[in-house]
Parts: sequence; C-alpha cells; structure tokens
Amino acid sequence: MKLKLDNPKIFSEIIGIISEMVLEVRIKVDNEGLSISAIDPANVAMILFKLPADAFSELEVEKEEVLGVSLDNLKAVLRRVKAGSVLAMEKEENMLKIIIQDKIRKEFSLALIDVEGDEKPIPSLNFVSKIEMTSVDFSEAIEDCNVVADSCSFVSAPDNFVIQGKGNLNSFKSEFSDEVNIQAEEATSKYSLEYLQKMIKGTKLTDKVVLNFGNDYPLKLEFNTPKISLSFILAPRVETED
Amino acid sequence: MKLKLDNPKIFSEIIGIISEMVLEVRIKVDNEGLSISAIDPANVAMILFKLPADAFSELEVEKEEVLGVSLDNLKAVLRRVKAGSVLAMEKEENMLKIIIQDKIRKEFSLALIDVEGDEKPIPSLNFVSKIEMTSVDFSEAIEDCNVVADSCSFVSAPDNFVIQGKGNLNSFKSEFSDEVNIQAEEATSKYSLEYLQKMIKGTKLTDKVVLNFGNDYPLKLEFNTPKISLSFILAPRVETED
Amino acid sequence: MKLKLDNPKIFSEIIGIISEMVLEVRIKVDNEGLSISAIDPANVAMILFKLPADAFSELEVEKEEVLGVSLDNLKAVLRRVKAGSVLAMEKEENMLKIIIQDKIRKEFSLALIDVEGDEKPIPSLNFVSKIEMTSVDFSEAIEDCNVVADSCSFVSAPDNFVIQGKGNLNSFKSEFSDEVNIQAEEATSKYSLEYLQKMIKGTKLTDKVVLNFGNDYPLKLEFNTPKISLSFILAPRVETED
Repeated sequence: MKLKLDNPKIFSEIIGIISEMVLEVRIKVDNEGLSISAIDPANVAMILFKLPADAFSELEVEKEEVLGVSLDNLKAVLRRVKAGSVLAMEKEENMLKIIIQDKIRKEFSLALIDVEGDEKPIPSLNFVSKIEMTSVDFSEAIEDCNVVADSCSFVSAPDNFVIQGKGNLNSFKSEFSDEVNIQAEEATSKYSLEYLQKMIKGTKLTDKVVLNFGNDYPLKLEFNTPKISLSFILAPRVETED
Repeated sequence: MKLKLDNPKIFSEIIGIISEMVLEVRIKVDNEGLSISAIDPANVAMILFKLPADAFSELEVEKEEVLGVSLDNLKAVLRRVKAGSVLAMEKEENMLKIIIQDKIRKEFSLALIDVEGDEKPIPSLNFVSKIEMTSVDFSEAIEDCNVVADSCSFVSAPDNFVIQGKGNLNSFKSEFSDEVNIQAEEATSKYSLEYLQKMIKGTKLTDKVVLNFGNDYPLKLEFNTPKISLSFILAPRVETED
Repeated sequence: MKLKLDNPKIFSEIIGIISEMVLEVRIKVDNEGLSISAIDPANVAMILFKLPADAFSELEVEKEEVLGVSLDNLKAVLRRVKAGSVLAMEKEENMLKIIIQDKIRKEFSLALIDVEGDEKPIPSLNFVSKIEMTSVDFSEAIEDCNVVADSCSFVSAPDNFVIQGKGNLNSFKSEFSDEVNIQAEEATSKYSLEYLQKMIKGTKLTDKVVLNFGNDYPLKLEFNTPKISLSFILAPRVETED
C-alpha cells in the first residue's frame, strides 16, 4: 500500500480533531480512498471521515488495508507537515512508514496496533430537520451557549431555528431565520457542549455546516468539501426533568 | 430599565479588569449613567467606575436601579462582544437580559444576585502630590519593579518623581522629571505590586494616567477619557522597618 | 568595571537560553570582552559564551572581574530590554548595576553571589566528524526526533549525515547529503533530546550551525556570528543495549 497527498495540511488538521475524541482508530484504505469511522470511548459520538481516491496524487492498494494507529502518535507526526510538504504513507509489515518531503526528506515509522473492540456499524437515521448555516454562525452559537450552560438545545420549526442553552442561573438564546436554510418540522433536541465544542473545530474545513436532527434524536453534523467528507453523529441528552 | 452601548468593547474590557479584583458588584444605573463602586475582599483596594449618560446611545430608566451581578458571569458574556457589536441591557424581574446584536442577535439572561456586605462610602482624601504621566511609562515602571520586588514606592518632590522597588537582594529605580507633569511636595508611599499590576490594565483605556498620593497615604490612580472614568484607590503599605 | 551594549536584545536572548540549563554563572569581564563558561547541575552539558570587546560600545575594566549572578534574576532584568534600548552594566561593591536606557532611564541593582563549585576547565576534544548545516534544518530534525524518541543519534560517513531517533515503537530518520557541508569519518553517537531542545534555541542567533562529534563521543554545537560565539558541549548517551 502506498499513497501520496500533495496538500496534507488539512488531513493533519482532521486527524487532530478526531484525536480529541478517540485515542485509536482503524484507517481503511482501498481503491476508493481513505476512511475512518470511530466511536468515542463513552459511546456518545461517532466520527465519519472520508478522503476519496481523487484527493490523492498517488494511491496504490491491492486489497483493502486496515491500519490500526494511535492517534496521538499519528497527530504528532502529522504536525511536522508544513505548507508545501508532500506526504507519503506506505505499509511495511507491521509498521506505517510516513514520509514528509520538504526541502529535506523526513521518514517516520509508526507501529501499527490492534484496535480494541469491534467496529460499530453506521446507524441508519431518519432526521426530521435539516439546517444549513455558515460555520462561523454555528460555532459562535456553540461558544455562546458554553458561557452559560453545559448543554445546548436545537429547536426547529418549518421557518425558524433556535440554538439555546440553559444553566442553573443563566441562559442564552439565538434565533436564526433568514441566515439559514431550513427544511424542518417542529423538533427539539439537546446535546452535550463538551462534544459540540470539539466538533466545531471542523469549521476550519469549510464555511458551511449541515445539521440534521429530530425530536430527542441524534444529531448528524456534516462538514463537506468537494474532496473531503467529515461528519459527526452525536447522541442526544434526554432528560427526565420538566 | 433599558440601555444601549454602540461600542461595548471598552465596557467589556473594564468589567474584565474589575473582575480581577472583586467577584460581585452592584451596578447602579440612573439618569446620569452607569456606575460601579466596589471594594476588594481584602479591603485594600477600591474601584470607582463611571459611564455617563452620553456614553449610551439609549438610556431609559425610571428610578435608580441597583443590579447585583457576578462579575465572572458578566465578563464571560461580554467577552462575546465583537468589534461592531451593539450591546443592550434590560432588567426583567430578577434577571439581567444582555443582547449582543451582530449579524446575529444573541440574547443572554443573567441571574441578578444579592451582593453581600454594605456599600462602603468613597473616602474623602487629601493628596499632597499629583503626577500626570503617560500610561506606557507608568505601566513599564510597575513591571520593572515587579522584576525585583513585591512592592513599589512612589517618591515625589516639587520637581522630581521616582518609582522604585526594593526586594531582599535586588532593587530598581526610575526617575521622571521632564516626562511627567508634577504638582507635588515631598512624599513617599509604598504600595502592593500585586494590586498595581491589576490596575495598570486600565492603561488600555487611555494614554494618560494621574497618580495622587501623599506620605504613607492611599494612592488614587485615575484613568479618564472624555466618556469614561475609571479610578482605583489603594491603601499604602506602611511598614515599621526603616 | 563599566560596559555598554547598543543592541542588548541578543545578549538578553542568550542569557535566556543559558538560564534553561544553569541557575547561577560566573560572568568574566576583561579587556577581551565578556565570557561565560558553565556546566549544568547534572554534569551533562557545558555552555561556552563569548562576547568580544568590539561587541561593546564601551568597555572599561582595570583587571579581570568575575561576577557571580543568579540567571533567573539577570534574565528577568534583561527581559525589560526593548528594541532601541541601550544597556550599561557597572560593578559597585557587591552589586551589579544594570542600566537600561530607553526614553526613560531604568536602573536595576542585582546582588552579586558566590557561585558554588569550582570552575571546570574546558575539555580538550578531538572530533572525527564536523557537519555544517542550516540552523533551521538542524532544529527541525531535533523536533522531528522528539516526536518519536527521547534521544537522537547522529550518524556520519565521508559523504553522508543522518539524524535519527528510535523510541520503543516508533522511529524517525532524516538523511542529509547535498544540504550540508561534511568533513567526516564513520561515526555514530547518541544524545539526549531534552538537552538538544534547549540548545537549538541558539538557532535564533545565526542561520548556520556546526556539529562536531565522534563515535560515542561528546558533541560540540557551535552557533557563531562575527561578534558572538555560543557553543555547547554535550556528553553522549552510551548505552549497552545493542
């Protein structure tokens, strides 16, 4: 297996984002490209990442390869990538060779590991509400909620979308109508801000984000560019209070 | 009660400065504007802040309102202010509604609280020395003293002003004559650098600072702009060692 | 003793670098300039620093002076130096007077101290390999090694130079041939990355670094400019494992 990326900076950033939620992942490489699907240790969030074949300047793979890696190690290596670096990855026995070619050629070898636990299937979900908004507005609203609370509710109606947070004493509310693209029914669901704050780092990738959710239902957050697809599925916080 | 500020960034910064010395304050709002007077828990420093009516683009108040707020919460909300934001505040029952209007409208509600302790009157002080100098020179000298000591002495004479610090081993001294405006008699007083370092953050507001003090006497530090008045009164450190 | 430096910023940075390895030093001043030679408390690294007479705009010294100083204190004072400051130092009894002249004159007095331990002579070393390379390439390679290991090996041959690191699981290797100036025999030696990371801060001084080493032999790292000479001698890590 051999692959080459001409602009590895974004790949490096995505690995950094994922590494805040999971410690180890299986990276799959086949003729269609590279993909990661992983669940955080608390079973609250799922990460889905795809880099298609045409994102690579070189992609040689005979059969599907599954590379178990420690994300802390991989992240530390990928941080050494600079603007203008070319990144190559090769599997050699139980090692992943990572070559960063700048003016100087840097060659890292990472031990491949056995990732514990079975791979979870991607759940089949039916969302009643889909909101498309700018990444900036979304990540601002998450930060605003975080000032007053540790969870955040998304409230949709056919022509309206509200992000709000309620702490013990203080609260926040922001209403979106013209600024967002709404295909929604009435639905309310609450999510952990701890996770959302990690996920909004995906706003670096693209200036649009798509939110899919339902009533007390999982959220699917999508950050897509023509070449990259990064999504998060987050379980709702369903509480018995009021 | 309703008020509106078109350039709330400086208000946000002042609340940040005050929050380093006190946890809770009473904010008074009346037809003359908004004011805060507070004493730090150790009873060493007093903070006096006034934002007059003409600093507001809107100020509606029937009778004097006293708003007890937690500064940590208020500071966290005001940090969400951006260049170009408009800030509105309204009292609604026992809540303070804070609306930050950017491209998006953000609405925060903060619980009003009962601030413990009686309000202290502003002491009547007679200073023998008044020094006007640039904010930069003053804050530099405080930082310089901090390199060698934990307190700082101001020494004035009719034509001379010295800032000096003496630690156990090392010392610092800076003399000002032409660079400052002096109306002074001979006086020496020593103050805590821990407090002065918090107070010099007021130098963000204006490029001039006025120091008023006497012999082993409180210091009054004034940072004034045409629209804002921020002062600190700091008790002297009177020691029996020579 | 009196001396004056017109561009003290670099002197300030060098004292900062040295202060990460030793707490107290003897600064020698004579007609030839200022010099420091010091050994770190673990006896693993030696620092050699020289500022020749012509680096000073003023240098008055009757006999050799040896100034024992705490580097933490000296570093804190020198951090107060700004672009454009002029630095003067005078010995007055058991104090070192440091005057920083900006728009304002700042006068610090530091207590001179007795530095413990005898002065160690500079060891006489015979290196078989000498590599000259850019500071950037060298410090990058050290940072790369640090991603996977806590030590770093230098491997030279007459036409080749390799920097590599091996951790328990992961490894790194970078090969230099055209990019460096090599006068070397076959030699391999391993050094602590903890120390090398402190030493590469010397790359601020100059864009070239010279590495001198041998087989399981000390390293001498040289950062030289026309007016400044800063070198480090670092003991090798000789291990019995293969």
